[in-house]
Amino acid sequence: MAKTLNIGLVGCGFMGRAHANAYRQVGPFFDLPYRLVLKACYGRADNRDKLEAFAARWGVESVETDWRQLVTRDDIDVVDVCVPNHMHHDVVVAAAQAGKIVLCEKPLAMNTAEGEAMVAAVEKAGVANLIWFNYRRVPAIALFKQIVDEGRVGRPFHYRAVYNQDYTIDESVPQGGRALWRLDAKVAGSGVTGDLLAHSIDTAEWINGPISQVVAATETFVKERPHAETGEVAPVAIDDACMFLARFANGSMGTFESTRYARGRKNRNTMEMNGENGALCFDLEDPHVLGFYRYADPQTGRKVEDHLAGWQRIHVTNFDHPYMDKWWVPGCTIGYEHTFTNTLADFLTGLHDGSPAQPNLRSGLRTQLVCDAVLESARAGAWVDIPA
Amino acid sequence: MAKTLNIGLVGCGFMGRAHANAYRQVGPFFDLPYRLVLKACYGRADNRDKLEAFAARWGVESVETDWRQLVTRDDIDVVDVCVPNHMHHDVVVAAAQAGKIVLCEKPLAMNTAEGEAMVAAVEKAGVANLIWFNYRRVPAIALFKQIVDEGRVGRPFHYRAVYNQDYTIDESVPQGGRALWRLDAKVAGSGVTGDLLAHSIDTAEWINGPISQVVAATETFVKERPHAETGEVAPVAIDDACMFLARFANGSMGTFESTRYARGRKNRNTMEMNGENGALCFDLEDPHVLGFYRYADPQTGRKVEDHLAGWQRIHVTNFDHPYMDKWWVPGCTIGYEHTFTNTLADFLTGLHDGSPAQPNLRSGLRTQLVCDAVLESARAGAWVDIPA
Amino acid sequence: MAKTLNIGLVGCGFMGRAHANAYRQVGPFFDLPYRLVLKACYGRADNRDKLEAFAARWGVESVETDWRQLVTRDDIDVVDVCVPNHMHHDVVVAAAQAGKIVLCEKPLAMNTAEGEAMVAAVEKAGVANLIWFNYRRVPAIALFKQIVDEGRVGRPFHYRAVYNQDYTIDESVPQGGRALWRLDAKVAGSGVTGDLLAHSIDTAEWINGPISQVVAATETFVKERPHAETGEVAPVAIDDACMFLARFANGSMGTFESTRYARGRKNRNTMEMNGENGALCFDLEDPHVLGFYRYADPQTGRKVEDHLAGWQRIHVTNFDHPYMDKWWVPGCTIGYEHTFTNTLADFLTGLHDGSPAQPNLRSGLRTQLVCDAVLESARAGAWVDIPA
Amino acid sequence: MAKTLNIGLVGCGFMGRAHANAYRQVGPFFDLPYRLVLKACYGRADNRDKLEAFAARWGVESVETDWRQLVTRDDIDVVDVCVPNHMHHDVVVAAAQAGKIVLCEKPLAMNTAEGEAMVAAVEKAGVANLIWFNYRRVPAIALFKQIVDEGRVGRPFHYRAVYNQDYTIDESVPQGGRALWRLDAKVAGSGVTGDLLAHSIDTAEWINGPISQVVAATETFVKERPHAETGEVAPVAIDDACMFLARFANGSMGTFESTRYARGRKNRNTMEMNGENGALCFDLEDPHVLGFYRYADPQTGRKVEDHLAGWQRIHVTNFDHPYMDKWWVPGCTIGYEHTFTNTLADFLTGLHDGSPAQPNLRSGLRTQLVCDAVLESARAGAWVDIPA
Repeated sequence: MAKTLNIGLVGCGFMGRAHANAYRQVGPFFDLPYRLVLKACYGRADNRDKLEAFAARWGVESVETDWRQLVTRDDIDVVDVCVPNHMHHDVVVAAAQAGKIVLCEKPLAMNTAEGEAMVAAVEKAGVANLIWFNYRRVPAIALFKQIVDEGRVGRPFHYRAVYNQDYTIDESVPQGGRALWRLDAKVAGSGVTGDLLAHSIDTAEWINGPISQVVAATETFVKERPHAETGEVAPVAIDDACMFLARFANGSMGTFESTRYARGRKNRNTMEMNGENGALCFDLEDPHVLGFYRYADPQTGRKVEDHLAGWQRIHVTNFDHPYMDKWWVPGCTIGYEHTFTNTLADFLTGLHDGSPAQPNLRSGLRTQLVCDAVLESARAGAWVDIPA
Repeated sequence: MAKTLNIGLVGCGFMGRAHANAYRQVGPFFDLPYRLVLKACYGRADNRDKLEAFAARWGVESVETDWRQLVTRDDIDVVDVCVPNHMHHDVVVAAAQAGKIVLCEKPLAMNTAEGEAMVAAVEKAGVANLIWFNYRRVPAIALFKQIVDEGRVGRPFHYRAVYNQDYTIDESVPQGGRALWRLDAKVAGSGVTGDLLAHSIDTAEWINGPISQVVAATETFVKERPHAETGEVAPVAIDDACMFLARFANGSMGTFESTRYARGRKNRNTMEMNGENGALCFDLEDPHVLGFYRYADPQTGRKVEDHLAGWQRIHVTNFDHPYMDKWWVPGCTIGYEHTFTNTLADFLTGLHDGSPAQPNLRSGLRTQLVCDAVLESARAGAWVDIPA
Repeated sequence: MAKTLNIGLVGCGFMGRAHANAYRQVGPFFDLPYRLVLKACYGRADNRDKLEAFAARWGVESVETDWRQLVTRDDIDVVDVCVPNHMHHDVVVAAAQAGKIVLCEKPLAMNTAEGEAMVAAVEKAGVANLIWFNYRRVPAIALFKQIVDEGRVGRPFHYRAVYNQDYTIDESVPQGGRALWRLDAKVAGSGVTGDLLAHSIDTAEWINGPISQVVAATETFVKERPHAETGEVAPVAIDDACMFLARFANGSMGTFESTRYARGRKNRNTMEMNGENGALCFDLEDPHVLGFYRYADPQTGRKVEDHLAGWQRIHVTNFDHPYMDKWWVPGCTIGYEHTFTNTLADFLTGLHDGSPAQPNLRSGLRTQLVCDAVLESARAGAWVDIPA
Repeated sequence: MAKTLNIGLVGCGFMGRAHANAYRQVGPFFDLPYRLVLKACYGRADNRDKLEAFAARWGVESVETDWRQLVTRDDIDVVDVCVPNHMHHDVVVAAAQAGKIVLCEKPLAMNTAEGEAMVAAVEKAGVANLIWFNYRRVPAIALFKQIVDEGRVGRPFHYRAVYNQDYTIDESVPQGGRALWRLDAKVAGSGVTGDLLAHSIDTAEWINGPISQVVAATETFVKERPHAETGEVAPVAIDDACMFLARFANGSMGTFESTRYARGRKNRNTMEMNGENGALCFDLEDPHVLGFYRYADPQTGRKVEDHLAGWQRIHVTNFDHPYMDKWWVPGCTIGYEHTFTNTLADFLTGLHDGSPAQPNLRSGLRTQLVCDAVLESARAGAWVDIPA
């Protein structure tokens, strides 16, 4: 008999919607030992209409306008944190102290210090926890990792990651407010570094192991913007763009870049890795495709015939591909929202088996540390070492 | 206050699952005037376990092992037919006679005669009805149609469609049974013609208007297969592959092909159209992309500068693209299952507004007629005219 | 010591230029047992300036305004025919009778009857001969053939070819005259069938063996055009577009299409082949790329791992690729003109070795026969059988 | 009457061959006021056979085994330097002092100091001069520049360049000797920085104006290699890979990377630029294609309709595209070698018109300066400023 898990959603914006959908969808598609109930969701008291509409739409049983109330309710098993970044710390610490399972959106925190406190809290409480780096569960990215782990890339030489968008180029785009809090440094902590590069760094270290050194530069192209709610024009304090060079402990070289000013790029989260035996590349704008250059077989050392070698375009929809046996049939794609559902399925399976769900908050703290080192390097104009 | 519509699913195989998901998902993503309840589902009595598991998984309130029972239940408003083709006629006619709203999977029927009776039944009963040519609601295909309607293709010269797969090449693949009834002519009616080309024809006529003439050839590459349930080796009576030439009433030339023997192609449903002002192309294996060659503006006649002209790869995820304002944000894709949800949303909106939902069964009958003409041409080895 | 071969070019238009370049370039890039001398070229007396400019530009030693004069000159070893189609017959027959080596542009002739006489002439004279189906020597197409011959496609199911362009859509494009004789039926014989589909058919039969049956349809979209020289508006008698279905003797199904009305397509000569072991595809607009789907190894039967299978994009510039060891280094492409040079190199090597150079005029006659059957089928509106 | 220019080729390796071909081909394809004669070529005395074979193959009238002899011959007008980098300085200075027109392969020199002396020599002598950054004359790269100059990119935000290859991964590849002198620091000066990044930097500054600041890292993955001629195993002193961040004076951010260890990449010289009005991208492995994202028209400010915007794949073979009116017809590609021919044509046209041919040696010196700053930054582990 499936155990019931009651979910409390702290946040009902874009990410709240993506998570609500995952809770709703994971059941019919995965065989799980839990029955999930959307028990409560939190939203601001000054926007109660939106909160209640959200609850009605997603079948959430109750609403709260005080998150502290929600995280201590006896009928809540899981606290899922999808409010803006500046609230992560307080909500996570409170939820952990209340003994709740904690799921937290990325980036973990406003900075490493906050993140350390959060990790301390969940570890002290001994509660299961997860950070939503959902892109690890894009089937093609999971396959990327699998192929690396099979030795098919071999000794690594290069890794490069780009995460580019173009939605803030217009100077009239405001900062702050509900929809655009990501442009407000007091709420977001940083700009593209925490929002986008955090994904790139999480994936990079998941695949390669630790980055040991970075040198970075950031830029804010539009210096002032009106505030969405007050209309007041104020300096923009986030990084519009960030680029950095990295060295990995495994000897590989890395280049990273992110911006919201790459005209023509909507959600271009790419990664490429080149090694002795092969190479891989991926672009989130074509999420069902993995590029693979097969050079030599790691077991036999046999090389692909020279006249037959070429980049393969793997259509990651076969039954043998990660997660794809749960969805439709070969040739039929899934989309953005499924990355959350796949993540949730893995977390719940791990929860039931008692094995650690990854990435947990400690893993998120590591990414936070690298992000902070990147921003520090940009400020200092110098290379920064990152402890392993 | 949203009116409740009680759904009865007749069929709980692959398509039953896709539809059940659509009923579940349409509510939170579209603002609809209906509340949908999965009231009952039908499955064969000799597989009651599977039926009950399906109902539990999808939250269907009750099960029936006699579809006649289901379609006459007073608490059912909508009968959704997703059993194999040979049952469509009887279920649809009975449901219409019972005054139910009828939704039917494609192809409409085993042949035109059956289809005519079905259309007569729903029209006599005056019930709203729909055939699930779900690919019309792939956002990129809907955009294809929109761009044609905007005059951006102009006088049409060519249309070509391919629908290729590769999953039946192995001679050991059985025919018949639950999973592979599409290879059994007694159940499926035809092979790729009804299964795949029906989609291609529906889309082609939706965009171009009627096909007036065809000449076709079919092939069955593997002549005998074991039956999935009995093990008996029997001749294969379906068409493994079908190709045809067409003339459209609008003066355009058409080529069509479908096969399940195109090694390397998983769900390659492509279409290309070339006209005086521009051209379009699409491939369902990259469902979020529409190719567009812009040559001249239909209003002004202004041509794109010669040095700047090229095929555009439209990433069909902008808010201005069909359906995409209902899902996520630009750059974030949706997948196969959403085509059913989009279809359902349009049907329900039309139902409420009293405007005809397309494609309805009459539209499905037209496609059936063209499919039959194609098969007749292949048998006769001659061109066949198709009345408008 | 390299033997000298004196070349006489009959024609100095677009193809004369392409051939002149090949004679010039073949020497430094291939190690050949011949020294080639451009001895004479023919052009019309009423355009002597153009003829002399051509000779000066390409280092041709002399000019002739009477081709009969040229083909009988004692100092000419090779007659290369690149005048419009309606002259092929007379020039080839005369050159053969004069004992010259004969190279002839495609299509071979205005019709099969002419072609038969031409083949009879060269065979009676016992002279080496070649038809310039230059695309066989696109490295990627040569590799296509090689991979098929290695058994990597295996039992063939499908072949499809398209040759589409868009340069005659505008109604103001004239017919006839020097540049646009391809639109004048009296000079060209046919439209896209002889001009473009002849290439597709030559390649298709080279790879698959004979086509045994076709059914075709043609269209002339613009019914009247001004003549380029007289300005007189006259009916257009060529086929603007042609599409046909085919059956190959090897059991494979084929679709073919060609048009000059495919907006956005400049020189889209594509071919795709699907078989039991693998599949291949090619597009002349990306001439350095061959698509290859590897499914099973023909020797061992071993299948590619399901999670690794995908279409490969072979960048056909490796030293192991056909012809590419003669040019630059991996990654560096060659272009359109090199297909002529490669063809010439193969012909000259074969000439020296006494082995037949392919495709010779007899091979060109076969293609002519298929083209004529296609046009006959279009006229008759019926399938036409083609003897092997 | 065309003036004769006598060419002296100093070098007959891979680049000597590419240049010899350009001298041979420029005449028939471009209408030039010069007649070019390959008068002499230099090669090492200890490899006279190869030298003479080269001269015979390319029609060079005489050979020299002492380059000083060649550059002072009265019958030489142009000295073209395509020996390895460590000889550039001496040959160029001597040629300039002898009053010859000087063409020099890239990179200009072993270092900035050498380069300054070379520029001083040609400027003092007042001789026309050119550095062979041939990729500026890839039609698609020339079109890239043209579109930027037309204002279609607008305010620039980002530029990124990659130049990756994979041919030295195997540890058994030797260093030094004729074919592999690029791995020998004493002959090449640097590794990928001078060989590959020099191209990327030249193109970047041509398009964007000066780079003002860089921070770089280099790596040598294979630490020791046998020498090709002596067999002696010695440390490898070149950079196998180099990556750097840049800031441009125009406010744009830049990322650059080059390696010979990018498995699967043969000659991947890419560049992408994002600006307010549009974006461009290019990959030398598909040299006939330019990617263009059109957002807003610089004159009118009119934006592309949101539902129609997408990356265009411009097939750079139209008559309106740079250089393409000189070659074949739309849809027909040119290749690697044509970049040299196009360069030569521009140089000769400029020479005749008295207008400066770009890039000249002074421009090459600028690129050398940036390369040296990059290597200095990598050594120092710090940002380095570059004077404008």
